[in-house]
Amino acid sequence: MTILSTILEFNETFVSEKQYEQYATTKFPDKHIVILTCMDTRLIELLPKAMNLKNGDAKIIKSAGAIVNHPFGSVMRSLLLAIYELQADEVFIIGHHDCGMSSTNTDHIIGQMVDRGIDKSLFKTLQYSGVNMKDWLHGFSDVTESVKMSVDLTRNHPLMDVNVPIHGLVAHPDTGKLDIIVNGYDFVTKK
Amino acid sequence: MTILSTILEFNETFVSEKQYEQYATTKFPDKHIVILTCMDTRLIELLPKAMNLKNGDAKIIKSAGAIVNHPFGSVMRSLLLAIYELQADEVFIIGHHDCGMSSTNTDHIIGQMVDRGIDKSLFKTLQYSGVNMKDWLHGFSDVTESVKMSVDLTRNHPLMDVNVPIHGLVAHPDTGKLDIIVNGYDFVTKK
Repeated sequence: MTILSTILEFNETFVSEKQYEQYATTKFPDKHIVILTCMDTRLIELLPKAMNLKNGDAKIIKSAGAIVNHPFGSVMRSLLLAIYELQADEVFIIGHHDCGMSSTNTDHIIGQMVDRGIDKSLFKTLQYSGVNMKDWLHGFSDVTESVKMSVDLTRNHPLMDVNVPIHGLVAHPDTGKLDIIVNGYDFVTKK
Repeated sequence: MTILSTILEFNETFVSEKQYEQYATTKFPDKHIVILTCMDTRLIELLPKAMNLKNGDAKIIKSAGAIVNHPFGSVMRSLLLAIYELQADEVFIIGHHDCGMSSTNTDHIIGQMVDRGIDKSLFKTLQYSGVNMKDWLHGFSDVTESVKMSVDLTRNHPLMDVNVPIHGLVAHPDTGKLDIIVNGYDFVTKK
């Protein structure tokens, strides 16, 4: 049985038994927050539980490393939509220790791609088409610095409401312990 | 008490009581899948439960609308890292009905921004700096079509391993019911 059919079969039972009833909520975040965090497997249940978040409490954006590095990319678009259209009043940017993006080895990734069938000549084509693979795949060396940079880029974005606090935190991926890196209230006038 | 201090206070108890112990896992996805879905509040707990996913089972990427629309943006980077570095062997792109991105009204969003203090002249500055706000904030009119397009962009990405199935699904945000739009196995040779 494939993973797809296993999931779909389970899903059919989940729906027919109305197991969804306990998760009833609306599309607006009850706690009026939007979170940007990492796609890491260890955070799926752990992070909401460690923050006391239930279904419906927050908008949650996830990407490799919880990095904001393009002012007009999809992460920033998601943050702005959450704030201006979906009643999120505060932003939480939450990186974590032992993040895959803190140890990206671009040569290794490119090697993996070649081993799995990507033609080597493609990387030259991309380079001279304006895609610098090393820059693009590069993560960060220090999660605290990465969170600070993402908070800074978000707070100073030309389209950001200056009264929205942008908090920066780092989570422990095993315990869910949160350390505050940037207290967003320090940068807003209305609290 | 602020939302930040409420969360941090709860977190301290969560950690000191070792409530994290039941979520112990590793950074590699036990079910070898990576999911791209939406930041919607209704999916936080509902979607993993409706797919029978526990902490550690999957890499989960989330953005407004679960859209892949930039081949070298952070969503695609996250997908590729999950596949080449983190043992994800299949991709699930899961949009949902009643998605905020299916009804974005860019004029309304820009109006909200101006109401909250963004200088009107900024939009002209951005336009002539290469940022087309209408294009950037535009979502989709049909979630099925949007999922198909994101699957297509992912499957045909020059750096994608052709043997990785890219599935497309649409979820119901209240029941978690999953409908299959694209069966990724139909497009790979190794199954």
